[in-house]
Amino acid sequence: MTRHDGRTPDQTREVRITRNWLDHAEGSVLVEFGRTRVLVAASFTEGVPRWLKGKGTGWVTSEYEMLPRSTNTRSDRESRKGKVGGRTHEISRLIGRSLRAIIDTKALGENTIVLDCDVLQADGGTRTASITGAYVALVDAIEDARAKGLIRKDAQPLTGSIAAVSVGIVKGEAVIDLDYPEDSTAETDMNVVMTGDGRFVEIQGTAEDGAFDRDMLNRLLDKATVGCAELTRLQQEALAATPRKRVL
Amino acid sequence: MTRHDGRTPDQTREVRITRNWLDHAEGSVLVEFGRTRVLVAASFTEGVPRWLKGKGTGWVTSEYEMLPRSTNTRSDRESRKGKVGGRTHEISRLIGRSLRAIIDTKALGENTIVLDCDVLQADGGTRTASITGAYVALVDAIEDARAKGLIRKDAQPLTGSIAAVSVGIVKGEAVIDLDYPEDSTAETDMNVVMTGDGRFVEIQGTAEDGAFDRDMLNRLLDKATVGCAELTRLQQEALAATPRKRVL
Amino acid sequence: MTRHDGRTPDQTREVRITRNWLDHAEGSVLVEFGRTRVLVAASFTEGVPRWLKGKGTGWVTSEYEMLPRSTNTRSDRESRKGKVGGRTHEISRLIGRSLRAIIDTKALGENTIVLDCDVLQADGGTRTASITGAYVALVDAIEDARAKGLIRKDAQPLTGSIAAVSVGIVKGEAVIDLDYPEDSTAETDMNVVMTGDGRFVEIQGTAEDGAFDRDMLNRLLDKATVGCAELTRLQQEALAATPRKRVL
Amino acid sequence: MTRHDGRTPDQTREVRITRNWLDHAEGSVLVEFGRTRVLVAASFTEGVPRWLKGKGTGWVTSEYEMLPRSTNTRSDRESRKGKVGGRTHEISRLIGRSLRAIIDTKALGENTIVLDCDVLQADGGTRTASITGAYVALVDAIEDARAKGLIRKDAQPLTGSIAAVSVGIVKGEAVIDLDYPEDSTAETDMNVVMTGDGRFVEIQGTAEDGAFDRDMLNRLLDKATVGCAELTRLQQEALAATPRKRVL
Amino acid sequence: MTRHDGRTPDQTREVRITRNWLDHAEGSVLVEFGRTRVLVAASFTEGVPRWLKGKGTGWVTSEYEMLPRSTNTRSDRESRKGKVGGRTHEISRLIGRSLRAIIDTKALGENTIVLDCDVLQADGGTRTASITGAYVALVDAIEDARAKGLIRKDAQPLTGSIAAVSVGIVKGEAVIDLDYPEDSTAETDMNVVMTGDGRFVEIQGTAEDGAFDRDMLNRLLDKATVGCAELTRLQQEALAATPRKRVL
Amino acid sequence: MTRHDGRTPDQTREVRITRNWLDHAEGSVLVEFGRTRVLVAASFTEGVPRWLKGKGTGWVTSEYEMLPRSTNTRSDRESRKGKVGGRTHEISRLIGRSLRAIIDTKALGENTIVLDCDVLQADGGTRTASITGAYVALVDAIEDARAKGLIRKDAQPLTGSIAAVSVGIVKGEAVIDLDYPEDSTAETDMNVVMTGDGRFVEIQGTAEDGAFDRDMLNRLLDKATVGCAELTRLQQEALAATPRKRVL
Repeated sequence: MTRHDGRTPDQTREVRITRNWLDHAEGSVLVEFGRTRVLVAASFTEGVPRWLKGKGTGWVTSEYEMLPRSTNTRSDRESRKGKVGGRTHEISRLIGRSLRAIIDTKALGENTIVLDCDVLQADGGTRTASITGAYVALVDAIEDARAKGLIRKDAQPLTGSIAAVSVGIVKGEAVIDLDYPEDSTAETDMNVVMTGDGRFVEIQGTAEDGAFDRDMLNRLLDKATVGCAELTRLQQEALAATPRKRVL
Repeated sequence: MTRHDGRTPDQTREVRITRNWLDHAEGSVLVEFGRTRVLVAASFTEGVPRWLKGKGTGWVTSEYEMLPRSTNTRSDRESRKGKVGGRTHEISRLIGRSLRAIIDTKALGENTIVLDCDVLQADGGTRTASITGAYVALVDAIEDARAKGLIRKDAQPLTGSIAAVSVGIVKGEAVIDLDYPEDSTAETDMNVVMTGDGRFVEIQGTAEDGAFDRDMLNRLLDKATVGCAELTRLQQEALAATPRKRVL
Repeated sequence: MTRHDGRTPDQTREVRITRNWLDHAEGSVLVEFGRTRVLVAASFTEGVPRWLKGKGTGWVTSEYEMLPRSTNTRSDRESRKGKVGGRTHEISRLIGRSLRAIIDTKALGENTIVLDCDVLQADGGTRTASITGAYVALVDAIEDARAKGLIRKDAQPLTGSIAAVSVGIVKGEAVIDLDYPEDSTAETDMNVVMTGDGRFVEIQGTAEDGAFDRDMLNRLLDKATVGCAELTRLQQEALAATPRKRVL
Repeated sequence: MTRHDGRTPDQTREVRITRNWLDHAEGSVLVEFGRTRVLVAASFTEGVPRWLKGKGTGWVTSEYEMLPRSTNTRSDRESRKGKVGGRTHEISRLIGRSLRAIIDTKALGENTIVLDCDVLQADGGTRTASITGAYVALVDAIEDARAKGLIRKDAQPLTGSIAAVSVGIVKGEAVIDLDYPEDSTAETDMNVVMTGDGRFVEIQGTAEDGAFDRDMLNRLLDKATVGCAELTRLQQEALAATPRKRVL
Repeated sequence: MTRHDGRTPDQTREVRITRNWLDHAEGSVLVEFGRTRVLVAASFTEGVPRWLKGKGTGWVTSEYEMLPRSTNTRSDRESRKGKVGGRTHEISRLIGRSLRAIIDTKALGENTIVLDCDVLQADGGTRTASITGAYVALVDAIEDARAKGLIRKDAQPLTGSIAAVSVGIVKGEAVIDLDYPEDSTAETDMNVVMTGDGRFVEIQGTAEDGAFDRDMLNRLLDKATVGCAELTRLQQEALAATPRKRVL
Repeated sequence: MTRHDGRTPDQTREVRITRNWLDHAEGSVLVEFGRTRVLVAASFTEGVPRWLKGKGTGWVTSEYEMLPRSTNTRSDRESRKGKVGGRTHEISRLIGRSLRAIIDTKALGENTIVLDCDVLQADGGTRTASITGAYVALVDAIEDARAKGLIRKDAQPLTGSIAAVSVGIVKGEAVIDLDYPEDSTAETDMNVVMTGDGRFVEIQGTAEDGAFDRDMLNRLLDKATVGCAELTRLQQEALAATPRKRVL
């Protein structure tokens, strides 16, 4: 079986992670999964939301949004509609929850990191690209805070790494990292978030057209496991390289 | 291992399904999973949303909401806050998607069924109770429409049945149908929606405290499979019984 | 003259007051006037709104809302529309004002009681059913607070009792407790809130179709006076009985 | 008993009705009850709201609002708060309903008249001043439409006249047309809307501090009846005079 | 060249400034430029917005709004639409900025003056009339605060005076103070805010139909300079006169 | 005088215009003025807003927004606040108006072009960069529509070119293209939009700290005239080059 863009079922698109794409943000990444392009900015601020005050723990959260013309046809801005849509809320919550899974909020102190994931161009897999890129921006923001003395030198807020990939059933076959044409016709669509040591943090699978059985589920999870391991490797490579220098 | 309320890990709470709890709605169910109590109303209306007009297919959707004092401490009303929260959106979308999985929208004709799931009392598992109850209300609404000649006598909009249950890891052990005290301390929380013939429609698993491995995932899915089969049986029983008569 | 459901002009519908319908709320009542069914939850919380802080007085308020399918045809949710309608505001304000009429806010201390009145099924008279039921829930919430030591043992926040009934002119004749078919065709519609000792707290009369004269007004007020006395008796009966036990 | 401003209990404040205060509106009135000053604009537009289309009947409605500094201390604008408050909704609905009581919507044809009542200065009684002034603006707007041929020459949309006054119990005594200092300390506050021939259209009485008995109610209604008759006379006088000429 | 209403290109409309049109506000002005009629209320309140607290400086701001029937055809209220339009925001910001240009916020102390500019009738030039009138109301509010001891006797918060006028190109010719028929057909529209000593505070020029060259720009600025000087003289006259007495 | 970044008063920052930065949009540009970075997407859609229907003319409009971390410290998203701020509205309107100045809407036919200007990084001058970049994206979108036959081959919707630059008074001296540190301390800030043939379309000058005289105004306009000519040259260069190929 060949996919419409020539990939094998196990093959992710070309993934590019450009660190410090922005000059102001404490951490920032332009992450690309093929033509999907997400700008992630990690903002470190002292203080926590009111409901956490005085507990000595920090907070990590995320806001995801799509630019109106990131898609094939223009969508209305949520700011103009005066309300944030259900899908936007849902993905923002997923990203925040995923990153908190590898954060020791005690070690972060009473500080907040917001991960803004703005989709500049969408071609399927924007939420998994966001999570994968946000991890790298988060690492940079924590290092920046450590360098500025905003968290203790010996604090280890990160307890692991995190990456995410989509898998799905397209024309009866399990494939990884669906682009938009595949995603919009998939029978089942599943997003899997995994730690760098291969355990699950989130599994969100939806049968869009016909239910799926346990056997197919296992094949999807196998593919996701391999894919997340590959993305983890790319994240480590990006973090090992010297990033573009910020202009402060 | 005994759970805080005496149940075994495999044991769901007492489930009660009261049909036709309302007099006006085409289908309605008061569904109870222990102290969790959800009022589901299925409203059948002719016509479809604008983006579906003229395509000859129908639509099934859902709106979920919690009464302000369904919970232990009162929450503000979303209507007063002027916006619907992310969690509410997310669950509404999940319920609608789950029920559409067993609907042949062509057979429904250009008609819409809205499933309003209002949580009168919350004690964990409100979204799975909603889905399980909504299936029964949906069956009644379709029968009502057939009786009134709003859909063809021989149309079969239902392609199967659907039920949902939560599973999770509490103190290291996999358990089914978590109540609020369990849910709020669970290491992992997973909602599973399955068809009556045992296939998956939705899997949403979240590690709240520590990632989980493939082996634990399998144990959770095993429990969910058994639980959904049991709920399917209870739905069939409820549908086989003569319901409370509506006063039209 | 016989009414469409066989009642005499002076006859209210069957009224049922079920205490402690909910397990969490400090006071709760399922109140039914025929097929009109309102769930009232009284929530006691320490503290008062900002504009009352430090004055040593408490606050009682109410929020009224109809479930989307409480009515014959489904209405859109106010939370989805992003704003609360005028009618909802108006009734919420009426209920709160009515109950404050029998509350000594000094004796309540700096505590707030919110009365959530959610209409599960509407068949006319939802606001008067709400007020009548809310009084009972309020009594229970105050007793609960007293038992928990949240208000002083000897404090008497209640200065009387309150009940409400609708009266109206239907086909030229004064009748009490209009159901929906009557309400929607009435020439005049009036809601009357009275204390247990027979004085007025609110009178809201509206000529829907043709003005009414002083003589007809007197006949309406006579009927309301008798009806409120009857409702007061039913409230006392409900409060005298042992309520369904809450599961805390 | 003398009131704080020297009036007798039966005495309304000085009432001034200035017709055609605006140049653009089909009807407009600056109505003053003492220092209370409301600008009423009646806008006649062809067409009706969607839910009335094709029924051959017209519509009369109202929107009431207070300028932020109409009051002693500045209030926030509802437009900036992003939502219309309950009191504003309630009064707008009352004004619209009151005026519809004397309109034959069939005779109006499929046309709409909106009565905008903007309170320029508030000193108690803004809703009753609005209704009293709106009647005059409404008459002018209907005449304007007749002159322009927008309604038939022989159509009689007006079936009567309408005026409104407040009455209340201040320091135990019934008084008419309360100003702000009286209104804010009244034990009972009642707004009464009456037709020119002395029948009731709306009665809204609220016990703010202590319930009131039937005898007191009768005294309040007596005063309102006399007051509305006096206001009716002033309306007729204003309508008999030649108004300020509009500059079209 | 004669203009449609007989004015010469250099001639403003008749300008009237009525001080203390309101009884409650610390300063108030009904300002009229021909048929354009704006009610300006200056509200002095102790305290400043949160972001200014503790800095020892005051704040001056403005809110502009049009009544729904100030215009030829009725517009929807922004409060009912639930959001403030771009034009309203823009003009409010312009007015506030213009007045702050002549305020020494240090001398004002931690106090706020809000200038509410409500357009009762619109016939072009509402923003320039608002600024011109607001200066007078601001002077009165500052004097009122000085008299009440809310600012120091010797404090001089005013550093100059401010007036504004519109200029534009109509049928190829530069004219001043455009009314609505001119404004809606002008090729270029420019609002100019100047200090009493003839310097610029704001220039906002927009080519509505065809760009304009430097020479035409100079002609427009010449006219605005003369016009603002004339308005400054009228402001001084108004302030020199004894105003209508407020009824406190 | 040397500026803080070494530029002369007449020197703009390095300007880069990258065409077709996006794959989906009919025209798109990443425009950079130094560190200010704006992504402009031009979306061509058939049809026009309702108020233009049937008139045979097209429409060009713009929406401007800043990403939350485009600035030095993170700002809240307008979508989450539920309303669009005054500054955002104001700039969106300026951009749309500026581009319409060089569009013959008749020649466009009943089609709409939306110019989305999203600020990825802000360092002063975001509105002038947006306008300058939007012109290039607009040219590409029109060419794309012509190529697809959506507008007539011989239609000339563009009547000229447009560019914009900021000028201001910093420490008493007129300078061009202010970056954020200059902008935030400028005594006067002015944005000038000019056609390619050197005429004015918009002038928006604001005295932030002290009014400015006619002589200084002339110096600012001189600088803006030279700057816009230079930007026009860069736009022509960008349009002459072969752009990055879109992947459709």
